[in-house]
Amino acid sequence: MTQKPKEDRKRVLGGLDLGGTKIQAVVLDEHGTVLSQARRATPQEGGPPAIVEALAAALEEVTKPLQLESSELTGVGVGAPGAVNAATGTLLQAGNLPGWSGPYPLAEALAKKISVPVYLGNDVQVAVAAEARLGAGRPYRSLLGVWWGTGVGGGIILDGQRWMGRGAAGEIGHTVVRRGGARCSCGRRGCLEAYAGRGAMERKARKALERGEKTRLFDWMTEQGKDRLTSGVWLKALKQGDPLAVKLIERALRMLGAGIASAVNLLDVEAVVIGGGLGTRLGQLYVERLRVAMKPHLFVPQRPPDLHLAGLGELSGAIGAALLAEPVAEILAPSTEP
Amino acid sequence: MTQKPKEDRKRVLGGLDLGGTKIQAVVLDEHGTVLSQARRATPQEGGPPAIVEALAAALEEVTKPLQLESSELTGVGVGAPGAVNAATGTLLQAGNLPGWSGPYPLAEALAKKISVPVYLGNDVQVAVAAEARLGAGRPYRSLLGVWWGTGVGGGIILDGQRWMGRGAAGEIGHTVVRRGGARCSCGRRGCLEAYAGRGAMERKARKALERGEKTRLFDWMTEQGKDRLTSGVWLKALKQGDPLAVKLIERALRMLGAGIASAVNLLDVEAVVIGGGLGTRLGQLYVERLRVAMKPHLFVPQRPPDLHLAGLGELSGAIGAALLAEPVAEILAPSTEP
Repeated sequence: MTQKPKEDRKRVLGGLDLGGTKIQAVVLDEHGTVLSQARRATPQEGGPPAIVEALAAALEEVTKPLQLESSELTGVGVGAPGAVNAATGTLLQAGNLPGWSGPYPLAEALAKKISVPVYLGNDVQVAVAAEARLGAGRPYRSLLGVWWGTGVGGGIILDGQRWMGRGAAGEIGHTVVRRGGARCSCGRRGCLEAYAGRGAMERKARKALERGEKTRLFDWMTEQGKDRLTSGVWLKALKQGDPLAVKLIERALRMLGAGIASAVNLLDVEAVVIGGGLGTRLGQLYVERLRVAMKPHLFVPQRPPDLHLAGLGELSGAIGAALLAEPVAEILAPSTEP
Repeated sequence: MTQKPKEDRKRVLGGLDLGGTKIQAVVLDEHGTVLSQARRATPQEGGPPAIVEALAAALEEVTKPLQLESSELTGVGVGAPGAVNAATGTLLQAGNLPGWSGPYPLAEALAKKISVPVYLGNDVQVAVAAEARLGAGRPYRSLLGVWWGTGVGGGIILDGQRWMGRGAAGEIGHTVVRRGGARCSCGRRGCLEAYAGRGAMERKARKALERGEKTRLFDWMTEQGKDRLTSGVWLKALKQGDPLAVKLIERALRMLGAGIASAVNLLDVEAVVIGGGLGTRLGQLYVERLRVAMKPHLFVPQRPPDLHLAGLGELSGAIGAALLAEPVAEILAPSTEP
């Protein structure tokens, strides 16, 4: 039997969303459909080599149900937290990854292991690109994605393309919403993330607890077997009307409203998409509340941007990573068959 | 004698910068060189028709030294303050223009009068585009222009093109730098313009004077025969070390630093160009002070954007307006002669 001509082979892409605690993997077909998904823990020891091993293992796991080898993938994309040099496939810095210090040629190291071209992007930027292509952002040519989680990240789509600036565009979490205000984990003051990031809110909640403020946030955390205030803990606390949780989320919403409206005043995009762990967990109700919080700060309030919850859920990062490999696969391109 | 073939005719563009108090006109040749310039007062009575008359008169005045008629111009561009529909040539709203209320088909009205195609753009957006093409922004593919005057306006160039969003992009003056802060002339609170706009600073100075704070700002205003604190008055007060003037400008610089850095964190542009009446008048020394004020808020402080004073001075608006008519003139295009 002869080998099938190249254009008849299945074009399938692997996507890896590399986080501080977990790796999410997907396989995407040429229509952008998720054929398979898998998740595993990010190794907390062993630094970059251990992480590359784990990425390769995640790919094996996600290709197995499709009776594929990793090496049969047309291309693989990795979304990583931190500053990325997309051209060289180097992860420049990644504060959230255990044992990571200084630049590491992540794409090259993984490509060598799996014998498939590997592309690297920033996790939030690629997640926003996935929403633009296949999720809530599909109807729009321009949008701002705001990823509300431990931090507040963002991504920008203009004229249907990712806008990356000199590589670091989208850092809406470090918009100054209150000059001289709260201390941010980045070391600066008054950043949006210092009010709205889940990490910052947890620090604030712990201080309030020490001061004797009444809250059951940490009881629920312990009940759920967690050691930090997860999005699920916040959601439960809001549903129960915990006064501290309500106060901190209200404050976060006010600041998100100001920060996102400022970005809209600058960019005048058609739509804003809200994603991230906390954003997707809190859901549509809080997207509506954000709409209200933005309104007083919009320069053209009679024509606000459309506002949506991310449509791809927690897979957006992995799907967006897979789309990084699109150039080799011509995925989603019109069929050439007669 | 036969008419010259079209490609041999001189291609010259007219540019009109329409402001609340004056109209600046230029004629530009195909290399972007200013051949002629003229300035006249904006009529304070008669509304849109009087303004169209004055625009036509300004064109006559600026073409006369070149022994041209307005109708011999290849195309004319108008930069106007306010919201513009570029496609239809309609000025939607213009709070700063005397007697202007509601949309008016400005381009069509002027074109009818002078028998030349007329293009309309927002004044700050076109001024920034002029800086990008012919001024301080020439070396860059992406930049943010910040026009510091009565208000604080802005314009964005990405990948060498103006980014206009849905028409209103660039409103950096309405970035919230202090949520719940000072009242802005737009009616909202905490906008950058509420701290750094020359109009807002004058209101603050008048209140301080009423409270008995010591300042000679208004003495110098009267000496110079003005009825408002012009950029020249502010410059004189700073040079003399007037304590109130120094305090208000320092505050403006701090807020500009935060607001511009936030925009850079979002867009990661290569350069920022500072223009506008106050920006150009205060000059390079204050651009350096702005550099210092931005630094604490930059997410990637080790790689700040380049920062420049606008290079075309007060002609940037008129030159940018002329460039709106470029498509009909193919100005600056490579010569087709052998």
